[in-house]
Amino acid sequence: MNKRIIVQKYGGSSVANIDRIKAVAKRILSFKTNNNCIVVVVSALGDTTDELEELAFNITKNPSDREMDMLMSTGEQISCALLAIAIKAQGHDAISFTGHQVGIKTDKSHTNARIESISARRIRKALAENKIVIVAGFQGVSKDNDITTLGRGGSDLSAVALAQTLKADVCEIFTDVKGIYTTDPRIVKQARKIKVITFDEMLEMASLGAQVMQARSIEVAKRFNIPIHVRSSFSKEEGTMIVKKNMKLEEVAVQGVTSSKSDAKITICAVPDQPGIAAKIFTEVSKTGTNVDIIVQNVSHTRHTDISFTVPKKDLSKAFAAARSIAQRIKAGEVQQDKNIARISIVGSGMRSHHGIAAKMFQTLAKNKINIEMIATSEISISCVINNAQVIKAVKALHKAFQLEKRPSK
Amino acid sequence: MNKRIIVQKYGGSSVANIDRIKAVAKRILSFKTNNNCIVVVVSALGDTTDELEELAFNITKNPSDREMDMLMSTGEQISCALLAIAIKAQGHDAISFTGHQVGIKTDKSHTNARIESISARRIRKALAENKIVIVAGFQGVSKDNDITTLGRGGSDLSAVALAQTLKADVCEIFTDVKGIYTTDPRIVKQARKIKVITFDEMLEMASLGAQVMQARSIEVAKRFNIPIHVRSSFSKEEGTMIVKKNMKLEEVAVQGVTSSKSDAKITICAVPDQPGIAAKIFTEVSKTGTNVDIIVQNVSHTRHTDISFTVPKKDLSKAFAAARSIAQRIKAGEVQQDKNIARISIVGSGMRSHHGIAAKMFQTLAKNKINIEMIATSEISISCVINNAQVIKAVKALHKAFQLEKRPSK
Repeated sequence: MNKRIIVQKYGGSSVANIDRIKAVAKRILSFKTNNNCIVVVVSALGDTTDELEELAFNITKNPSDREMDMLMSTGEQISCALLAIAIKAQGHDAISFTGHQVGIKTDKSHTNARIESISARRIRKALAENKIVIVAGFQGVSKDNDITTLGRGGSDLSAVALAQTLKADVCEIFTDVKGIYTTDPRIVKQARKIKVITFDEMLEMASLGAQVMQARSIEVAKRFNIPIHVRSSFSKEEGTMIVKKNMKLEEVAVQGVTSSKSDAKITICAVPDQPGIAAKIFTEVSKTGTNVDIIVQNVSHTRHTDISFTVPKKDLSKAFAAARSIAQRIKAGEVQQDKNIARISIVGSGMRSHHGIAAKMFQTLAKNKINIEMIATSEISISCVINNAQVIKAVKALHKAFQLEKRPSK
Repeated sequence: MNKRIIVQKYGGSSVANIDRIKAVAKRILSFKTNNNCIVVVVSALGDTTDELEELAFNITKNPSDREMDMLMSTGEQISCALLAIAIKAQGHDAISFTGHQVGIKTDKSHTNARIESISARRIRKALAENKIVIVAGFQGVSKDNDITTLGRGGSDLSAVALAQTLKADVCEIFTDVKGIYTTDPRIVKQARKIKVITFDEMLEMASLGAQVMQARSIEVAKRFNIPIHVRSSFSKEEGTMIVKKNMKLEEVAVQGVTSSKSDAKITICAVPDQPGIAAKIFTEVSKTGTNVDIIVQNVSHTRHTDISFTVPKKDLSKAFAAARSIAQRIKAGEVQQDKNIARISIVGSGMRSHHGIAAKMFQTLAKNKINIEMIATSEISISCVINNAQVIKAVKALHKAFQLEKRPSK
């Protein structure tokens, strides 16, 4: 088959009710030509996932993961059947498949499984019969034939993995936003839709709070170099292309500004300044299953130093307890916690070659009387922890300082 | 494993909401001992089936059967997962399975598939681990790995077929009534719960309007001699045993009275009395896909005769059109239709050996000024077609005449 293969993914809001399902069906048919094959991955209808979860949690606070997967996977099974019905009603042949039916094999980590292989035999057969193929997103099946789900953003992952298996020409992620923006348009109304962004930039953006796509699916797309087009379910407008290397333009110094309020800060004061002391602390904290993010150790003037680190707010209490226990054992001082922090970040591949980006960021924050509590950098991002009351001011100021509202010139 | 194996089936009203699911879980655990294994078949939650159907029919009046099965099978998948969660929350290990996972193989007749084989490998393994096994009713999988459903009453069929495969000691059908009654208790308040009834009697009762179990599952139970216990989901009371042969008692002359208003009558008048003319008529009618039920050909005084037959009301218009067309071709007279009919029947294996049952039925109707329009008999039942305005009077009179409110003496 030498036809162009397109994988499209439609999220829950795109199929929230019968009218939207019909609209999506029409949409899909508008893309169908004699020279392409379309495989659609679909999420559960609107609030189905929440409703199913609520049913289970009304029975017990600790439902078994295996049974939750059995339960939750029905959401996508419903939406893919309805979408196939809607496409057929509009005159084109279509067929829906569960994750199991298209051989999406995963490990046994129920509720957060990893895809191990995809056979896609039935998809190829159906495409050869010129059918539009609809696949239930978010789900797979373990070696034992148990239904598994892929965790948050799992349908994106299904789409990217299918695109890889089918050697698709493009993977289109249809969503309720028009693409990836330079920052959250609800905060900065001048926020601009980015035309092209690299996988690496997108990964920084995703992990730093941009909620359009989950990091896992972008990682898979990056590994197999599958171009992704993030675009609106509700308009024909081009969205944002996520690619390996930004060929059209010089690498942009700063692509976007992101912010996140999901972390809290813990500080252990007066830690004895001895080799191996940091290892002791973070071994203890990691035993609680907490993912520590930014770590800052202040320059030590005396024989004591302060160590601060951020953890997800949901893990704060157990991480704090662990920090207090280790602080006592190593004879450190007081342990403090602070929930009122936020992280703001600027992201851009061009940072590698542009100078003065960090300085400009710090100056901008200083000019706006925003105190920086912690700093962390990667090759293509700089993050500052600030007081969460100042997030909006900080994002607006940085967006303006780096002129993100303007389209990047060459 | 020498433990007693019990298959239980809970219908949709038994699991209509979270409280009922918890109650059913408690119920199931009250039956569990160290010396038995319990396999539960469960229907979809309350109105789920109707809600799913409505979604599809809001898209198109003719959804494809394959996609409908994909859609509808989620109802049972949801309820079996929730029931497993509820049992585990009450402290006993449980595991849920789809039809596919327990190897319920069917033919390809989507929405009305026939079970061809059941492997039950995973059920046996889970029972050996002392788990309570919950199986999604109503569903199977075709050779192509497509999800199929078994048609109305399909969960009963799943239960009976699993009981056969597992060589279960008993198959218990839990429902919202307490058992099989001598007649509809809403019509006759003296209606009595029958303790023991034979498969054959139950088949007559089911096909004649008693709605507790579908005929297909009773046929399977009869073929493999699987005793069925129909009982209430909401009380511990014994229900009705359906067995091959009523061993405890002499065969009862009349077990029950049933009525049905689902048919209409067509009469072709003045049919030329020639050999082969009936064959011509019913060949034509059956071409429309209509199931003709009772046929009565009046004694022919002249060279013409009247032929009357009943058809399901839903098929009346097409059957009537076919009858008119053939009547014209064979030069018969007028064709009449009558929707205002009802069928009342008395059922009992003892009719084979008791005399005078038919006479008593006709006398009772006559005494109550109820005109008999058609009569049909089987080995263990007698049915009369009457005016549907007289059904309640007829059922009450027959129930009283055969003293069905009294427990049968030896």
